[in-house]
Amino acid sequence: MIPSIEWIDNKVKMIDQTVLPHELKFLEFEDFRDVAISIKLMNIRGAPAIGVAAAMGMALATIEYKELPKSEFLKRMEEAAEVIKKTRPTASNLFWAVDRIWKIISSYPDNPSSLSDLVVEEAKLMAQEDINVNKNIGKNGAELLEDGDVVLTHCNAGSLATVQYGTALAPVRSAIAQGKKISVIADETRPRLQGARLTAYELQYDKIPVNVISDTSSGLMMRLGKVNKVIVGTDRVTSDAVFNKIGTYLVALAAKDNNIPFYVAAPTSTLSLDETVDDVIIEQRDSTEVSNVLGKVQIVPDGVECLNYAFDITPFRLVTGIITEDGVYTPEELLKKYK
Amino acid sequence: MIPSIEWIDNKVKMIDQTVLPHELKFLEFEDFRDVAISIKLMNIRGAPAIGVAAAMGMALATIEYKELPKSEFLKRMEEAAEVIKKTRPTASNLFWAVDRIWKIISSYPDNPSSLSDLVVEEAKLMAQEDINVNKNIGKNGAELLEDGDVVLTHCNAGSLATVQYGTALAPVRSAIAQGKKISVIADETRPRLQGARLTAYELQYDKIPVNVISDTSSGLMMRLGKVNKVIVGTDRVTSDAVFNKIGTYLVALAAKDNNIPFYVAAPTSTLSLDETVDDVIIEQRDSTEVSNVLGKVQIVPDGVECLNYAFDITPFRLVTGIITEDGVYTPEELLKKYK
Repeated sequence: MIPSIEWIDNKVKMIDQTVLPHELKFLEFEDFRDVAISIKLMNIRGAPAIGVAAAMGMALATIEYKELPKSEFLKRMEEAAEVIKKTRPTASNLFWAVDRIWKIISSYPDNPSSLSDLVVEEAKLMAQEDINVNKNIGKNGAELLEDGDVVLTHCNAGSLATVQYGTALAPVRSAIAQGKKISVIADETRPRLQGARLTAYELQYDKIPVNVISDTSSGLMMRLGKVNKVIVGTDRVTSDAVFNKIGTYLVALAAKDNNIPFYVAAPTSTLSLDETVDDVIIEQRDSTEVSNVLGKVQIVPDGVECLNYAFDITPFRLVTGIITEDGVYTPEELLKKYK
Repeated sequence: MIPSIEWIDNKVKMIDQTVLPHELKFLEFEDFRDVAISIKLMNIRGAPAIGVAAAMGMALATIEYKELPKSEFLKRMEEAAEVIKKTRPTASNLFWAVDRIWKIISSYPDNPSSLSDLVVEEAKLMAQEDINVNKNIGKNGAELLEDGDVVLTHCNAGSLATVQYGTALAPVRSAIAQGKKISVIADETRPRLQGARLTAYELQYDKIPVNVISDTSSGLMMRLGKVNKVIVGTDRVTSDAVFNKIGTYLVALAAKDNNIPFYVAAPTSTLSLDETVDDVIIEQRDSTEVSNVLGKVQIVPDGVECLNYAFDITPFRLVTGIITEDGVYTPEELLKKYK
């Protein structure tokens, strides 16, 4: 799969994921505000990709403000950071990325112009690091997969959720590269259907066998023996739970009930082990995402409200293993290593 | 809510549930083949309603064939029964209803003409019995509900799934009639969205508070304390499990994990306690129901197949109680009473 986001000639170029799978369209932005809007509207989504988009947005802002006097520059950059951080409240990569850029800004406060070059380089480095991290997640996760496995995944934690290669789908790509025969069952992932639209698209693009199911079907698929492993991504791992796309918790319950291993692919940038579930705000999105499928078909009577939480909470007791770029760990081992 | 199906002037009149909630449109049939098609296309759906539709279809067939000699009449009626029984393989009410009509046919073999009148009367009686059964399920189930309860339901086991009043929604209606304040959270229920379209429609019609959620959300709603009870319907209860709309099993797992009572409203016509899970064929429907939402929005790339099982299996260990027209029973008590 081609990169979901790139820095080209002082512009941010990204795949518009809202029009997939029907159209492969690219967006180009020179204004950090447009990048922020693209995160909010989910033209780009997926925790790692959001992190890189945020960093590149910060880089655009430094270019915009680099002629300003230092104090004014810092004030404007603080505002830009706020605009970017306000877009999606649950993905820890967003804060991680802005904080990482901010460390450079606050270390080199005297020359905004050359600082801008440093920030741009850092954002580009973060994009490259993301790919490297994902390839290592792939290598570590591939060892869990056996020839013939059918992997169920929820939402899209693939190439499109990262810069390239994916997190949850990285082990699938690596295992296939090793010559194993692996296929994927993708939950459609309502309300925004990232599984049906994006996971199916990128796997088909890479010629990896994939079937789509309704979110209601994962339990039966497991019961019927049609799934061997589950791998999902994550937006944030706290010291007690995995936050990921709404519906992940149900998949984890079904995996547990059917003795199917449930793995979470988590770049260390998503680890937030000083927090517990009580510290996390779960993003609530507009009712119409549920009531009106992709803005095209209204499925709920006028006047009926829909509740639309974007993420849910999978407690560690349901998690078999967490795959990071360093290795595969049980939740207990993860806490021992990283906390 | 108005009746979903009625016998009027030797015609079967039904609400076309495929165009709800946008339009309240009625279909009228004089040919049993059209009734069979309406069951298959899900213009009418819901186990109890399907049972009555099947009986009324059989009644239409007796009118069509009543002038034939006895042996020819019986041969044609057997064919009609086959056509009707082949429409949906999982709903036990379909077989139960055809068998009940067949008992009359085989008891009065000498005069097809007056036999037709008897069959018509039996079909009308079955429709009335369905309403009575549902009201008793409502009375029994209402005792489980407390003032202020929020009831989560999956799919539509309401008035529209029966002749009138509903099974899973009957306790809600009864409790509200008793003066209790009850509200409902309806799973949208992909792929055919009976929760979003039908449950929301009929509750709004009756001014009962309802919110719709994506199927991915039930677990989080329970974890956040937004749900007190779960009540679902069923298409068939075997000696070890409840067959109901795909996704029910996931809801039951989440209820168990959050110590929320999980009730199944089951008219005794859905009990099939001489069977076990291994005896039941789970209907597989067309891939396009998943890939193309309501035939209007394609959500999956061309060339990617969807798996589309219509029902899943909830083992008795996840069921708190089964509400029949006679009372509320644990699975063990149910087996003792009815097997």
